[in-house]
Amino acid sequence: MNSVRQALTTHPFDDDKLKEECGVFGISHSKDAAALAALGLHSLQHRGQESAGIVSTDGKEFCVHTALGKVGDNFNSESVIRELKGDSAIGHVRYSTSGDKASQHVNIQPLFAELDFGGFAVAHNGNLTNAKQLRADLVKRGSIFRTTMDTEAILHLVALSSGSTVLECLIDALRQVQGAYSLVALTKDAMIGVRDPLGVRPLVLGRLADSYVLASETCAFDIIGARYVRDIDAGEIVVINGDKIQSMHPFKNEKKRFCIFEYVYFSRPDSFIEGKHVYHMRKAMGRELSKEMPVKADVIVPVPDSGVPAAIGYSEEAKVPFELGIIRNHYIGRTFIEPTDQVRHLGVKLKHNANNAVIQGKRVVLIDDSIVRGTTSKKIVQMVREAGAKEVHMRISSPPTTHSCFYGVDTPSQDKLLAHRMSVDEMAEFIGVDSLAFLSMDGLYRAVGEAKRDKKSPQYCDACFTGDYPISISDDVHKVKPLPLMEATKAKKKK
Amino acid sequence: MNSVRQALTTHPFDDDKLKEECGVFGISHSKDAAALAALGLHSLQHRGQESAGIVSTDGKEFCVHTALGKVGDNFNSESVIRELKGDSAIGHVRYSTSGDKASQHVNIQPLFAELDFGGFAVAHNGNLTNAKQLRADLVKRGSIFRTTMDTEAILHLVALSSGSTVLECLIDALRQVQGAYSLVALTKDAMIGVRDPLGVRPLVLGRLADSYVLASETCAFDIIGARYVRDIDAGEIVVINGDKIQSMHPFKNEKKRFCIFEYVYFSRPDSFIEGKHVYHMRKAMGRELSKEMPVKADVIVPVPDSGVPAAIGYSEEAKVPFELGIIRNHYIGRTFIEPTDQVRHLGVKLKHNANNAVIQGKRVVLIDDSIVRGTTSKKIVQMVREAGAKEVHMRISSPPTTHSCFYGVDTPSQDKLLAHRMSVDEMAEFIGVDSLAFLSMDGLYRAVGEAKRDKKSPQYCDACFTGDYPISISDDVHKVKPLPLMEATKAKKKK
Amino acid sequence: MNSVRQALTTHPFDDDKLKEECGVFGISHSKDAAALAALGLHSLQHRGQESAGIVSTDGKEFCVHTALGKVGDNFNSESVIRELKGDSAIGHVRYSTSGDKASQHVNIQPLFAELDFGGFAVAHNGNLTNAKQLRADLVKRGSIFRTTMDTEAILHLVALSSGSTVLECLIDALRQVQGAYSLVALTKDAMIGVRDPLGVRPLVLGRLADSYVLASETCAFDIIGARYVRDIDAGEIVVINGDKIQSMHPFKNEKKRFCIFEYVYFSRPDSFIEGKHVYHMRKAMGRELSKEMPVKADVIVPVPDSGVPAAIGYSEEAKVPFELGIIRNHYIGRTFIEPTDQVRHLGVKLKHNANNAVIQGKRVVLIDDSIVRGTTSKKIVQMVREAGAKEVHMRISSPPTTHSCFYGVDTPSQDKLLAHRMSVDEMAEFIGVDSLAFLSMDGLYRAVGEAKRDKKSPQYCDACFTGDYPISISDDVHKVKPLPLMEATKAKKKK
Amino acid sequence: MNSVRQALTTHPFDDDKLKEECGVFGISHSKDAAALAALGLHSLQHRGQESAGIVSTDGKEFCVHTALGKVGDNFNSESVIRELKGDSAIGHVRYSTSGDKASQHVNIQPLFAELDFGGFAVAHNGNLTNAKQLRADLVKRGSIFRTTMDTEAILHLVALSSGSTVLECLIDALRQVQGAYSLVALTKDAMIGVRDPLGVRPLVLGRLADSYVLASETCAFDIIGARYVRDIDAGEIVVINGDKIQSMHPFKNEKKRFCIFEYVYFSRPDSFIEGKHVYHMRKAMGRELSKEMPVKADVIVPVPDSGVPAAIGYSEEAKVPFELGIIRNHYIGRTFIEPTDQVRHLGVKLKHNANNAVIQGKRVVLIDDSIVRGTTSKKIVQMVREAGAKEVHMRISSPPTTHSCFYGVDTPSQDKLLAHRMSVDEMAEFIGVDSLAFLSMDGLYRAVGEAKRDKKSPQYCDACFTGDYPISISDDVHKVKPLPLMEATKAKKKK
Repeated sequence: MNSVRQALTTHPFDDDKLKEECGVFGISHSKDAAALAALGLHSLQHRGQESAGIVSTDGKEFCVHTALGKVGDNFNSESVIRELKGDSAIGHVRYSTSGDKASQHVNIQPLFAELDFGGFAVAHNGNLTNAKQLRADLVKRGSIFRTTMDTEAILHLVALSSGSTVLECLIDALRQVQGAYSLVALTKDAMIGVRDPLGVRPLVLGRLADSYVLASETCAFDIIGARYVRDIDAGEIVVINGDKIQSMHPFKNEKKRFCIFEYVYFSRPDSFIEGKHVYHMRKAMGRELSKEMPVKADVIVPVPDSGVPAAIGYSEEAKVPFELGIIRNHYIGRTFIEPTDQVRHLGVKLKHNANNAVIQGKRVVLIDDSIVRGTTSKKIVQMVREAGAKEVHMRISSPPTTHSCFYGVDTPSQDKLLAHRMSVDEMAEFIGVDSLAFLSMDGLYRAVGEAKRDKKSPQYCDACFTGDYPISISDDVHKVKPLPLMEATKAKKKK
Repeated sequence: MNSVRQALTTHPFDDDKLKEECGVFGISHSKDAAALAALGLHSLQHRGQESAGIVSTDGKEFCVHTALGKVGDNFNSESVIRELKGDSAIGHVRYSTSGDKASQHVNIQPLFAELDFGGFAVAHNGNLTNAKQLRADLVKRGSIFRTTMDTEAILHLVALSSGSTVLECLIDALRQVQGAYSLVALTKDAMIGVRDPLGVRPLVLGRLADSYVLASETCAFDIIGARYVRDIDAGEIVVINGDKIQSMHPFKNEKKRFCIFEYVYFSRPDSFIEGKHVYHMRKAMGRELSKEMPVKADVIVPVPDSGVPAAIGYSEEAKVPFELGIIRNHYIGRTFIEPTDQVRHLGVKLKHNANNAVIQGKRVVLIDDSIVRGTTSKKIVQMVREAGAKEVHMRISSPPTTHSCFYGVDTPSQDKLLAHRMSVDEMAEFIGVDSLAFLSMDGLYRAVGEAKRDKKSPQYCDACFTGDYPISISDDVHKVKPLPLMEATKAKKKK
Repeated sequence: MNSVRQALTTHPFDDDKLKEECGVFGISHSKDAAALAALGLHSLQHRGQESAGIVSTDGKEFCVHTALGKVGDNFNSESVIRELKGDSAIGHVRYSTSGDKASQHVNIQPLFAELDFGGFAVAHNGNLTNAKQLRADLVKRGSIFRTTMDTEAILHLVALSSGSTVLECLIDALRQVQGAYSLVALTKDAMIGVRDPLGVRPLVLGRLADSYVLASETCAFDIIGARYVRDIDAGEIVVINGDKIQSMHPFKNEKKRFCIFEYVYFSRPDSFIEGKHVYHMRKAMGRELSKEMPVKADVIVPVPDSGVPAAIGYSEEAKVPFELGIIRNHYIGRTFIEPTDQVRHLGVKLKHNANNAVIQGKRVVLIDDSIVRGTTSKKIVQMVREAGAKEVHMRISSPPTTHSCFYGVDTPSQDKLLAHRMSVDEMAEFIGVDSLAFLSMDGLYRAVGEAKRDKKSPQYCDACFTGDYPISISDDVHKVKPLPLMEATKAKKKK
Repeated sequence: MNSVRQALTTHPFDDDKLKEECGVFGISHSKDAAALAALGLHSLQHRGQESAGIVSTDGKEFCVHTALGKVGDNFNSESVIRELKGDSAIGHVRYSTSGDKASQHVNIQPLFAELDFGGFAVAHNGNLTNAKQLRADLVKRGSIFRTTMDTEAILHLVALSSGSTVLECLIDALRQVQGAYSLVALTKDAMIGVRDPLGVRPLVLGRLADSYVLASETCAFDIIGARYVRDIDAGEIVVINGDKIQSMHPFKNEKKRFCIFEYVYFSRPDSFIEGKHVYHMRKAMGRELSKEMPVKADVIVPVPDSGVPAAIGYSEEAKVPFELGIIRNHYIGRTFIEPTDQVRHLGVKLKHNANNAVIQGKRVVLIDDSIVRGTTSKKIVQMVREAGAKEVHMRISSPPTTHSCFYGVDTPSQDKLLAHRMSVDEMAEFIGVDSLAFLSMDGLYRAVGEAKRDKKSPQYCDACFTGDYPISISDDVHKVKPLPLMEATKAKKKK
C-alpha cells in the first residue's frame, strides 16, 4: 500500500563507519575566546555532529550556550558569540551514541555546575569504563544526575571531593574513574587540560599570540592560525592561568596506548598528531596494502571521502591510475525519501554515484579504510558492478575490525561486526567482490612508523582489531551498549 | 530618531497585579491520567502562564514533558499525551518571577530525578523562606543544582535523606524547610499531596470514578467532571496508592493561616476553596465596600475581568447600574508595538478601551480588586476621563497592599508598592481620581465570613495588607528579591 | 484503542457563531502609518483572526507584510514595522472561510500588484456575489489568479480597465461587480475608501492630527486616539491625498441596507456605527426581549462574552439579578486534547465553566445573541443543568437565524441552521431548555431605533433572519459555499 | 569596537564561481512520480540550492510543493511526498541570482497557474533576453505578475494565447521569447520538454520501465536507475502522454550552440551530456593544460572539489604526483562568525585547510577550473604559502573568463571579472602566484573533441570566454543585472 519509505538513515554510507564520539577545544586569555572556540569546534566537526556547546568565563560569571546540530548552524550569529562573554572558553562537539532523541537534549557538553568553590565546566572526549558503578554509588550517596552521560559522574566526584583546591578535587575525582578521557575544564581562574594515563584519545597544545589553546587535533589550530606546541602527555594535567602554564603527572606512570584508529579514520587527514602527519600515515597504509595485497587492475577507485589518501598511496605503489570512480553528493539533507520496495536500493545512491566513464569495462580496485557491518560496502560494490565494471576488488587499509571499542567510539556490538562473524572469504562473498584483502597488523604498524607490533606490549591501543583491551572494563559491557544507559534514561525529557 | 518602541509589556494592565506563581495538579489510577492532567492544568492556567509540565508513570518508567508557554499550546497533540504513559500523572503551571529568560528554560516543574529508591517527581506551589541557606549548605555538601528554584532544594534533601521509605525521606526533607508549600509528588507506587503546617496555599482533594485527584482549586475538578471531596488540611500529608488513600499529620500542629488574597484575586471566581464560593466572597467584598465607602454615582464600572464580581456586589448594594464601561480586547499577542513618544500612552489601550456609550457625562465608580504599583490604575482613569466621565471614583475591594509576599506570590519589592509609599489621599491624587477608597480589614474579614479580624491570632495570612508574617523568613529578603537568585544563576543557559 | 481525541475545534463555543470575515483599516499622511495600522487592526481583531496584512507606501515604493495569525503575534517587532516604510498604510484582518489550509497562505489581504500605472493595493470587507462568473471570464481573457479570493477579481478588473486614471479604472472595475464591499485601497498618490451602493458593511472616517483614517469600526479610532468624523456613505468613494479629501458618488443611487447583525453581534460593543452606540443597541435588545418574553427566574446569566450587554438590559428590565453564572477561560491555545469517548463531552468545558455558586437550585435565564447550529447552546445548557439549576430558560436577543449570508459573513449552509430546520419548540427540546424565546423582528428594529420594520423597503439588510436578499446572487450559492472555490483551489500550495 | 563580524559569505570559496541557475526534472506515468522527482532533483542540487519545487498531477488535480532550501531538507517526509499525488511530476531547483530575500519566497519554480484550458506548470533552466520588454508589454495589457522571474512571462504569454490547444499556446508563447531555455512543462494530459533553438542549456531524455524522464543531466537518471535515451535536440519539443512520445521542431532551424562551460564546471563529473562523459572532458582539459603550460613542480594539488578531475589529468600528463594538498570541510553551516579585523582572513579557512604534510617545502601546482573575481584564488594561494610551499603555480583548465553570461548563469557584471580587468601577468601578481596560465581556446575545444574552434561558426556557446553572444540581448543588460529586476521588485513580500 504505502509505496514510500524513509531511507534507513541520513548518511547511508557513513553510517557504516565507526564514529568518534567527541571533540574538545579550549582557549584562554583571548579577547575573542568564544569566536575562536566556535571556529575550533567547526574544524573538529568530523568528531561529532549531533550537538555542540561552548562555556566561557570572564573570571566572574560563566556563560553557557549549547545546541543540537552543527557548530556552523548554531554559533553563527554575532549575538550568540557576544553573549559568550569572557576571555576563556571551552567547547565540545558530540556524536550521541544513543538513538534516544530525548536524552540528546540534555546530553550536550560542556557540562557546567556551580560548585562550592564556584563555577566548573568540563568537556570530555573518551569513555569511562566504570561509569555505571560510579553512578550507582553516587545516586546512593544522594547525587542527582541530570544527564545519561558518563561525564556527569566526574562532575559529581569533583563536587563531593574534600580537596582544598579545584585541582585537588579534580585529581581526586579522576583517581576514581577508569577509562579513556581527554578533558578540557574551565574554572573562573584557570583552563585545565587532562589526558588519561594511557593517552588513548588525542589532546594537543597550541599557542595563538598570548593565548594557550587545547584541542583534539591540530586542524583546530590551523583554522585560527595558532601554532602547534606539543601533544599533552598521557597522564598529564596542564593548568593554564592567563599566559602561564603548569604541568603535572599526578597519576601512576603507565605506557602510552594511543588509539591507532585515529590514524586509520577518525582524525582529519591534515592533522598532525603524536608527531605524525595523518595524511602520510594513510598514504603509507595504502602503499603497504598494495605491497601486501596486489591485484591486476585498470583503475584504483577510492570510496570517498575517507578512502582517498590510501587510494593515492596504493595507486602510486601499484602504478595503476587513480580515478574518481565514485562521485559523492554533498547536498544530503537530514533524511530522505525512499520509493517502492522495487527501487528501495536507490537509497544507497543518495550520497554516491558510480562514474561510468572510468568504470565501464574496467578491472576496479575499491579502496576503503575499514569495514564495519559491511552493508554499505555491499551496496557500493553492486553499484560499481551495475556501472559495468569487469572485475571488482576491494582493499581495506586496516586489519579486520573484530572487536568493539569502549573508549569513546560508537561501535556496533561485537556480533554486528562483519569481521567478527565471517572469515575474509565469507566477507568477500557477502560483499560481492572478486577479491577482498585487508592490511596486516604489522603492515599497519609499519605504516605508522613502527618496525612491527610489539605483541607483549603494543605501542598503540588496537583493541578493535585485536581484542587486547588496555583498560579494564568494569561495566557489564558485553550485555549492553557501552554507554551507561541507566535507570535515569527511563525518564524521557522532551524538548 | 527611533519612532517605534516596544510597549513595556505584553499585558500592560495585568502586569500591575500580584501574581500567583504556580498551580499544581495530580491524578492517579486513571487510564487517561496525562490527558486529564493537561485539562486540569488548563483550568489552572490563571495561576501561571510561563511554563507547564507533566510527569507520568506506569509504575515502572517515568515520562516527563515540560514546555515554556501555555498548556493549550504545548499539551495539545495526541502524540504528546500518548507519550506521557501510565495511569498516574502530576502537573504544574508556573509564573516565573525572574525576568531572566535563560533560567526559564530550566525552571520548569514538576522536577524529576532518579533517586536511589527510584524515580521521584515533585510540583510545588508556594515559596520556601530558607531556600538560600538550604542551597548554600547543599552545595557545600556536594549537591549540584540544575535550576534556580527553591523547589530543587526539597529534591536534594529527599535524595540525601537516610529515611527507609520514600515517605520518611520526604517528611525528613520537609522538616528542614521553612515556608509555604502545597506539593504534589509522584513515585512509581504513589501520588503524594502535602500542605505546609499553616496551609498558606490551597490544595483540594477530589474523586473521578476510581481515581483520586489533587489540585490547587476546584475549577480543575469541574473541567474533568471530578467531585470535590475536601480540602487537604494544613500540615497534612495524603498518600494515594491506586484507589486507597492514607492521611497523616507529621508536623507540629499550628493554626491554619490560609492566604486571604486567594479570595480577593488569585483563585478563579468559580472555585470553591476552604468551604467557600470565591464568587460569593468577591460579591460580598463589593457589598461591604459599598456600605463602607458609598459615593453618589451614575454607573458602576468594573475594571475587567477581575473587578467584575465585586462590581456586581457593589452595584446591587448601592442600587446604581452596573455597566461594561471598559471593554477588554482578548486578542493580545506576545508583545506589541508602540508608536512615537507623542502617542506612547496608546499602549494602555491595547487591552482595554473605554466604552463612551456609558461613560460620557457620567459619574463613574471604577471597581478593582487591588492596587499594586498604581501605574495601570492611573492610565485607566485617564482613559475614562478622556471618554468624557464627569467624575471618576475608584473603589478597591481589599485593603491597601502595603507589604511584599514571600510565600509564593510575585510581589514588587515593598518600596514599589503604591500603598507603602503614599497615603490614600496621595494615591488618589497620583491616580487622578475624584475619590479613592479601600475596603477595611474588618470589612474584608466580614466578607469572607468572619465577624472581624482576630488581631492576636488572625484567621488568615494577610501579611500583604498588614506585614504580619506568619512564617519567619531566613533568607535576606529585604535586600534581594525573595527567589533564591544564587550564584548558579550567573550561568546563563541559552536554548 | 485510541483513547485520546482532538477536540472538534479550537474554540468550541465561538465556532457556533456567525463569523464576520474581515476588517479593514487605512491611514495616510502620518509618519507612524504602519505602527498605527497595526494598532488599528489589533482593535479590529474580532472581525478576523486567521491572517493579517499591511501594505505601506512612501509615494515611491510599496512594502508588503502579511502573515497567518493574529496582529499582535506578527506585527509586534520594531523591525517589521520599520520595514513598512512610508506615510500611508492600509491593512486587513481576515477570517478565512475555507477550511483549506493551503489557500490560507495565499489568501491574505491586502492584495498588491504592480499595474501599468504603478503599485495598487486593496483590502476588502464583504463578498462579491458574481465572483465566480467574473473569474471564469477573466481566466478566459488570460488573467492568472494567484488566490481563491473574490477580491482578486477586482484587482484584475482594475488592471484590465482602459480608464485614464487610477480612479477611473477602479470605478470601471466596481461597476462590473455585484455584492457587498467596503474597500480601502492604496496607490502611490492616494488612499481610497469605497462602500458598496447599499452600504452593507460598515466603513467609518476619522482624523488624527493631519491624517485621515478609514476603518471598519470606531474602536480602531479609539486605540490610536483618532477622532470619528462620519460614516462613509453607501455608494460613496473618498479619495484622500495627504490631508485633502474628495468625495464622489459614482454609482446609481440606492437605499442603504446596512447589516443589522453588526449591531446584534459582529461589531465591538464600544463601537459607534451609523450614528449609534452598539452597546446601547444591545442593551435595548435585552430590554425588548425581557418585555416580549418574560419568565419567572432567580438569575439572569449571560453566555460570555457576547451575551453580556443584552443580559444587563434584560436584568434591568426584568429586575432579576445579573450574575456571572458561566466563567470563561481565556487561556485557550490552538487546539486541545479530548480524553476517551466516555468523557468526550469535557471538550465543552475548555472554554467555559458553570459557576455553581449562583446556579445551584436557581431558575436560570441564559441570554445569548443568536443560535446558529445550536450545538454549543445544547452543551452549555447541559453544563448549567449539571451545576444544579432548577430551571433553565434561554432568551435570544435577535430573531431566529434562518438564512445564510452571502455578503461577507461565514454562515453554515442553510440546512445546517437550527432555526431553518426546526420550530422554536423543537429547538427548545433539542437544546434541552425549559423554555426558549427569540426577540421579534419588530422588537429588533425597535431596539435599533426604528418604530418597526418597513416590510416593503426594510431599513436594514436582515436577510439572515428573513431571506430578503437586497443584492442578487449570480453565483450558484445554493449548491456550494458562497466563496468562489473555483478550479484553482485544486492546486494546493503547501507551506 | 565590534570585534566580531559576519564572514563575507557562507561559502567563501564557492562564491567565487559562476553559478548555474537551475536544474529541471520531469517524470510521467510512474506511480512514484513525486518521490522519483525528489530524488532526481537531489542529484541536480549542484545546479541550484536556494529553493526547490515539485508540481504533480493525477490527470485531474494539481499539487504544488515549493520550499526555500535544499531538496533533502524539504522533500524528505512521507507526508510531503504523499500529498504530491499523481503519476506525473515536474520539479526544479533554483539558485536565485537576486540577493533580495523577499523575492526568494515567491520566485520558486515550477510556476503553476489555472488557465482557461486547465492547470499548467512550467520549470525553466536558462534566461530570457527580452524578459524586461515582454513584462512591460504584458503589464500594459493587464497581466498581473506575482514573481520577478522571466519565466513568468512565458506563463502569461501562454494564458493570453489564442491557440486552440495547449501545445499551440506554448509554441505561440515561445515564438515571442528570446534567450536560452530548457523547459519541462506539465498539463493534466501531458509532460512537455522544450529546448531553445540553439540548445544552450542541456536537457536529456531517459526511460525507467514504462516512464519517460526528462532532466538537465544524466546523473538524475542514475539516482533512480533510469536509462539514458538521448539528448533533446536544439529547438525540439517533445510531448509525452503516458508512455507515448511525440517530437516536433516548430522553430526556425539554427546551428546548435551548447554551453561549453557545462563541460568546464557546471555539470556533474559523472554526467554524460551531448554524447560525452564530463569526467573525460575535464581530465582532457587537464592534460591539454599540462601540454600547453608545463611547469617544474613536486606536487599537483587540486582546488577541491571542482579542480580534481583536471588535476588528475594534469598529473598523469606531467608525471608529477597528485596530492590532496587542500582539505575541504563539508560541515559548513549557513553563515559563520569572523573574529577581529586582525584575524578576519580566517574566514577563508572555514571551508578549506592547507595540508602541510604535502605542501611544506614543495613546488606546488594548484589546478582550478576557472577564475571569476580572483578573491578566493588569492586567499587559497596565501594559505598554501603559509603552509610552507616553496613555489606556487596556478593552472586553470579553461580560458580566461572575460564576459558575462546572459543565458541562465549568475555571472558578476563584466567589470568585476578579473580577466576582464587584467592581463594574465597582472592576474598572477594579484593572486600572488609564481606563475599563472590558462588553457587556450583551441585547447579547450580539443579537450571536448573538436579539432579547433570554428571561428566563423563556433561549435559551442563560449561567450563567457569570447564575448561572441549567439542570441541577441534586447534587455539593457550592460547597465543592469541580466535578471528582470523590474518595478515589481520594489514590493517586498515578507513571509
